Amino acid sequence: MEIERIETGIQKLDGLIEGGFPSNSSILVTGPSGTGKTIFCIQFLLHGASKGEKGLYVALEERPSDVRREMTRFGFDISAQEKEGNLFILDVANPRARLPSKEKYSIQTQFDTEHFANKLYEMISQNDVKRVVIDSLPALTFHFGDFGEIRNAIHEINNLLLELGCNVILVSETTDFREGVSRFGVEEFVASGVIVLTYSDSGSKMTKNLLVLKMRGTKHAVNRYPYQISDNGIDLQIV
Amino acid sequence: MEIERIETGIQKLDGLIEGGFPSNSSILVTGPSGTGKTIFCIQFLLHGASKGEKGLYVALEERPSDVRREMTRFGFDISAQEKEGNLFILDVANPRARLPSKEKYSIQTQFDTEHFANKLYEMISQNDVKRVVIDSLPALTFHFGDFGEIRNAIHEINNLLLELGCNVILVSETTDFREGVSRFGVEEFVASGVIVLTYSDSGSKMTKNLLVLKMRGTKHAVNRYPYQISDNGIDLQIV
Amino acid sequence: MEIERIETGIQKLDGLIEGGFPSNSSILVTGPSGTGKTIFCIQFLLHGASKGEKGLYVALEERPSDVRREMTRFGFDISAQEKEGNLFILDVANPRARLPSKEKYSIQTQFDTEHFANKLYEMISQNDVKRVVIDSLPALTFHFGDFGEIRNAIHEINNLLLELGCNVILVSETTDFREGVSRFGVEEFVASGVIVLTYSDSGSKMTKNLLVLKMRGTKHAVNRYPYQISDNGIDLQIV
Amino acid sequence: MEIERIETGIQKLDGLIEGGFPSNSSILVTGPSGTGKTIFCIQFLLHGASKGEKGLYVALEERPSDVRREMTRFGFDISAQEKEGNLFILDVANPRARLPSKEKYSIQTQFDTEHFANKLYEMISQNDVKRVVIDSLPALTFHFGDFGEIRNAIHEINNLLLELGCNVILVSETTDFREGVSRFGVEEFVASGVIVLTYSDSGSKMTKNLLVLKMRGTKHAVNRYPYQISDNGIDLQIV
Amino acid sequence: MEIERIETGIQKLDGLIEGGFPSNSSILVTGPSGTGKTIFCIQFLLHGASKGEKGLYVALEERPSDVRREMTRFGFDISAQEKEGNLFILDVANPRARLPSKEKYSIQTQFDTEHFANKLYEMISQNDVKRVVIDSLPALTFHFGDFGEIRNAIHEINNLLLELGCNVILVSETTDFREGVSRFGVEEFVASGVIVLTYSDSGSKMTKNLLVLKMRGTKHAVNRYPYQISDNGIDLQIV
Amino acid sequence: MEIERIETGIQKLDGLIEGGFPSNSSILVTGPSGTGKTIFCIQFLLHGASKGEKGLYVALEERPSDVRREMTRFGFDISAQEKEGNLFILDVANPRARLPSKEKYSIQTQFDTEHFANKLYEMISQNDVKRVVIDSLPALTFHFGDFGEIRNAIHEINNLLLELGCNVILVSETTDFREGVSRFGVEEFVASGVIVLTYSDSGSKMTKNLLVLKMRGTKHAVNRYPYQISDNGIDLQIV
Repeated sequence: MEIERIETGIQKLDGLIEGGFPSNSSILVTGPSGTGKTIFCIQFLLHGASKGEKGLYVALEERPSDVRREMTRFGFDISAQEKEGNLFILDVANPRARLPSKEKYSIQTQFDTEHFANKLYEMISQNDVKRVVIDSLPALTFHFGDFGEIRNAIHEINNLLLELGCNVILVSETTDFREGVSRFGVEEFVASGVIVLTYSDSGSKMTKNLLVLKMRGTKHAVNRYPYQISDNGIDLQIV
Repeated sequence: MEIERIETGIQKLDGLIEGGFPSNSSILVTGPSGTGKTIFCIQFLLHGASKGEKGLYVALEERPSDVRREMTRFGFDISAQEKEGNLFILDVANPRARLPSKEKYSIQTQFDTEHFANKLYEMISQNDVKRVVIDSLPALTFHFGDFGEIRNAIHEINNLLLELGCNVILVSETTDFREGVSRFGVEEFVASGVIVLTYSDSGSKMTKNLLVLKMRGTKHAVNRYPYQISDNGIDLQIV
Repeated sequence: MEIERIETGIQKLDGLIEGGFPSNSSILVTGPSGTGKTIFCIQFLLHGASKGEKGLYVALEERPSDVRREMTRFGFDISAQEKEGNLFILDVANPRARLPSKEKYSIQTQFDTEHFANKLYEMISQNDVKRVVIDSLPALTFHFGDFGEIRNAIHEINNLLLELGCNVILVSETTDFREGVSRFGVEEFVASGVIVLTYSDSGSKMTKNLLVLKMRGTKHAVNRYPYQISDNGIDLQIV
Repeated sequence: MEIERIETGIQKLDGLIEGGFPSNSSILVTGPSGTGKTIFCIQFLLHGASKGEKGLYVALEERPSDVRREMTRFGFDISAQEKEGNLFILDVANPRARLPSKEKYSIQTQFDTEHFANKLYEMISQNDVKRVVIDSLPALTFHFGDFGEIRNAIHEINNLLLELGCNVILVSETTDFREGVSRFGVEEFVASGVIVLTYSDSGSKMTKNLLVLKMRGTKHAVNRYPYQISDNGIDLQIV
Repeated sequence: MEIERIETGIQKLDGLIEGGFPSNSSILVTGPSGTGKTIFCIQFLLHGASKGEKGLYVALEERPSDVRREMTRFGFDISAQEKEGNLFILDVANPRARLPSKEKYSIQTQFDTEHFANKLYEMISQNDVKRVVIDSLPALTFHFGDFGEIRNAIHEINNLLLELGCNVILVSETTDFREGVSRFGVEEFVASGVIVLTYSDSGSKMTKNLLVLKMRGTKHAVNRYPYQISDNGIDLQIV
Repeated sequence: MEIERIETGIQKLDGLIEGGFPSNSSILVTGPSGTGKTIFCIQFLLHGASKGEKGLYVALEERPSDVRREMTRFGFDISAQEKEGNLFILDVANPRARLPSKEKYSIQTQFDTEHFANKLYEMISQNDVKRVVIDSLPALTFHFGDFGEIRNAIHEINNLLLELGCNVILVSETTDFREGVSRFGVEEFVASGVIVLTYSDSGSKMTKNLLVLKMRGTKHAVNRYPYQISDNGIDLQIV
């Protein structure tokens, strides 16, 4: 029984993990500020969209309009895919800021996990969404006080998305340049795959590296591969 | 008086610990994300099943369906053993996510330690289960606030399983790559054996290592043995 | 589609980030005590003022009169630009200290996030402000107890400023000389750009370095560039 | 005035500390998981028993039946000494797990410090017990919330045992392989002697070491002595 | 526009910072125990007194009588200056200890921030005080629970002193020999100058060093300068 | 004006600090477990007693009977000095353990800071006590929750003792072998002198070192001096 693979949008990465993410799994993409986590996710969604797999980007931190604008830098035309009905953006960033959203899809200003889960359920099932990005988990979990609550909330959202048959990327973050994998030390155990974007520090220059730490049902090396953020997005330096 | 041994499912590991785990003991398997803790546990259960020792896998984090699927990668046919009545999976992952379970064995959505203990008691005594895996402890202990409560809850579940005559693997986790043995710093003292799966970091490549830190009633070296996750599961690199 | 650029006031820095900050974005300027964060911000505002882009400096920590005085050191004549109507200072430092403000613009002594947001809205929209500096975030967030509250408050103020079309600098701080990017470990994920002012320690002498850690929509190196605080402000040592 | 000495059961250790522990004192035996703390304690009790000094082992973590079984490994026949009336085991492990105890001596399921102290008093005074092992303190202190409460509870139990004229070993634990002496950072100040069992890490191999950190009224070196856990228990590698 | 300078009382330090502290500013003097922070402050006050600038020393930790006595060591005759009306000591140390004060100036036993601020206002305005030392901030902030409260209290006292036209030294402390600048990680951002007194450790000998970390409106090197505490107080080792 | 000196009981230490501790001051003696802090204190008291300066040892942790016994090791005959009326021991160790005290001087079982302060006042003033040892502060402060409370309680006891004209040693403790000076990070700022007893680690052997970190009104080097605990107590290795 072969596990179906979901292409990541980064061809060289697919080559490292048997062709892509295992289908119907959730992958944690994590790292410190500035490593290109959002770029990674948009590449993932647009690659799917280009093949007819509909995508949902849940914008919890950055405003959808900013994401659209910044991605033009890499030739990523989000609006075009939105018009085609291949990509949906759910604006949670403005509601979190108690600001009215100008977006087509948004959530009410005061929402809880149940509302959020219902909204995800509605958008995914009505639009036949296949790829989902939650950007980011820590921005979602601001309600939750302790370890147990956060762990359960992430577990709950994650399992809902998997039950709906989605291919999921969860974004988290680290505050240290060199160690640790996630904000809460929990996200990596909920996800079935973990990709760490990290810095290595050589003198005054910092190099970006991608590490596939975990990928269930997949044979992969646990190496750090340097990458650059080029005009086309994440560019893995593998010969 | 010779202590009876329970084969682990990894022959080379048995060779390091006088033939296997001491019978009727609980072994902590711990390590950071991506080291293959679940694979280790499934090998343990399937090896028992192949010898007629019935096994119970308590899925607290990952959905049973995902575990089944991912294990096919290593030629581990969980479903076949389930059909034979040699392996049982208790779905706690979906109930924790407030989702209905499609599994044969599951627990109600809102459960407490007493419910959980009763369910374990029922499944083990009715089915003559010999091997039990709790994957994982931290996902179980989300209810508990402080050190004392967590320590007692783990102690309570662990002793129940031992009283029932089981051979137990408790799974825990560490968030740091290099140091620490468990999430709460308590699990290793409750278990009578501790196996740490860990990374060592050599330049851009990370190597996995297995360390038998503790194994009561057993003479063993406290060395780090490198291993790979091969097509057949955990593959210890011992000559 | 080219992203519009906002000159920073430091020509050599503009040269590192495609001509300046992306327009309508918020940049975190952070670092330990004594690295010249306020100088950086005033340069940013005065450069805008010199081109007719009106600026707002929100003084949360230091008294406006002290800022004016100290900046004369670098030939920065804040008062002149205030008289021209090109620069506005909102005094929150005295109200925070329960002292009466002698400034033209100040906030009432007991204020909350809503009052603060309204005041910002009023000053920005009435005066056509284009550049805003919040100096500093930690001094603002003294009301807030936990991670979630702080994250949301920063998110809320930040998004309001962006919705108003401003080019924003948020100032934060670190207590360690060598690691970490922000006080709360949150600010860097809210901002779309991060500039870290930091020390490197060589023997008994400490050198200041500027690092562009993140700049969305911008190609930039992640190098540490040494700088000095000269008679003209921040002086990047790039040949 | 010569201080009376209590032989430890490890002859080479006696040689390091003027013949044994000072009589009527409490010694902390501490270290990470897997260093043989329980073996150390059983050696201490059995050595006393062999000389007619009655011993009490308070089993807070591990079940008495497991301790008995595992110790056969080293030729330590606990049951024989129990039958002789030279060794008593108080089962607190099963009551802590809310399980019925099959042991002759146990405590009720819900106990507090007062009950526990009374039980100790009763067993020690009725049976003329001379040597007491509390294995372990952290398992006892699960009730206690803060630093002060824990410190006082340990102080209280410890002083009761000393008032009763006992020679006491308190077991504690550390979670780090390399530093720290105890779980709470308090135990070492309550005890009048401290023996640290620890790992040193040389490449892939970990060596066990014994360190006499403190021994009141005793001249001793503060060296780390390597030891092995041999077929006869703790085997100090001193020539 | 030249910034007026306040001589520090340490001539060689004046030479490092353009002649002295900027007038009407607050300088944080901080460091671990034993580095001579109080000596630094008394030198500052006595130098002012010798030029007719009246000084106020707020004794929060050490009793005024002890300060007077110890300073005789360096030929600093505090009492003489008190008699002249050039130096005032406010005893908060005894009231904090619920002891009656024998000092001329003290505060009632139970005081809060408002009382304290009023007392400062009264003493400064009635006596035309120019130089103020608060020794120390952490002893003052014992009322305050969280980060925000402490930050605000320090901010409030500091700004009051500046509004009254004073030249202020705030004393704080660090518990680590090697890193960190202050107790709360807040003080250095409130002050407009930061002088760190610190140890460097070379073998068995510890050397004291002075570091001007921040001095607003002032050009200064960020070097560590060794100093000794000689018969005349702080003695900077600059050739 | 010469500061009067109090001989410490360790002649070579006196030689390092101008003849002894400054009179009527409080000295913190601190360090990890096993460094001989109690021995240091008893030497201090007995030296005073031998010169007719009456001493008070406040036993908070160890039972007076144990202290007496252990000190015979070094030829320190506490009982003899008690009989002479030169040394008093206040038993707080047994009351803290809720045990009846057999000592002449003890405190009631449930005591608070006020009771404790009153008892000190009574014993010191009635017996003309000159030297006081509080062994130890952390055992005293078990009542107190937060930083501010602990700081104030220590401050209060300390100032009472100084007001009574005593020469005081406060004992504290550190849990780390290598860094930090005290348990709460506060004690060293309350005391006017700090003596750190510490380990340095050279291979498998640990050497004890004495460091005079702070001694107000005293010129002293900040060196680490090795010492041994010999048959006569603390033996400084200074040639």
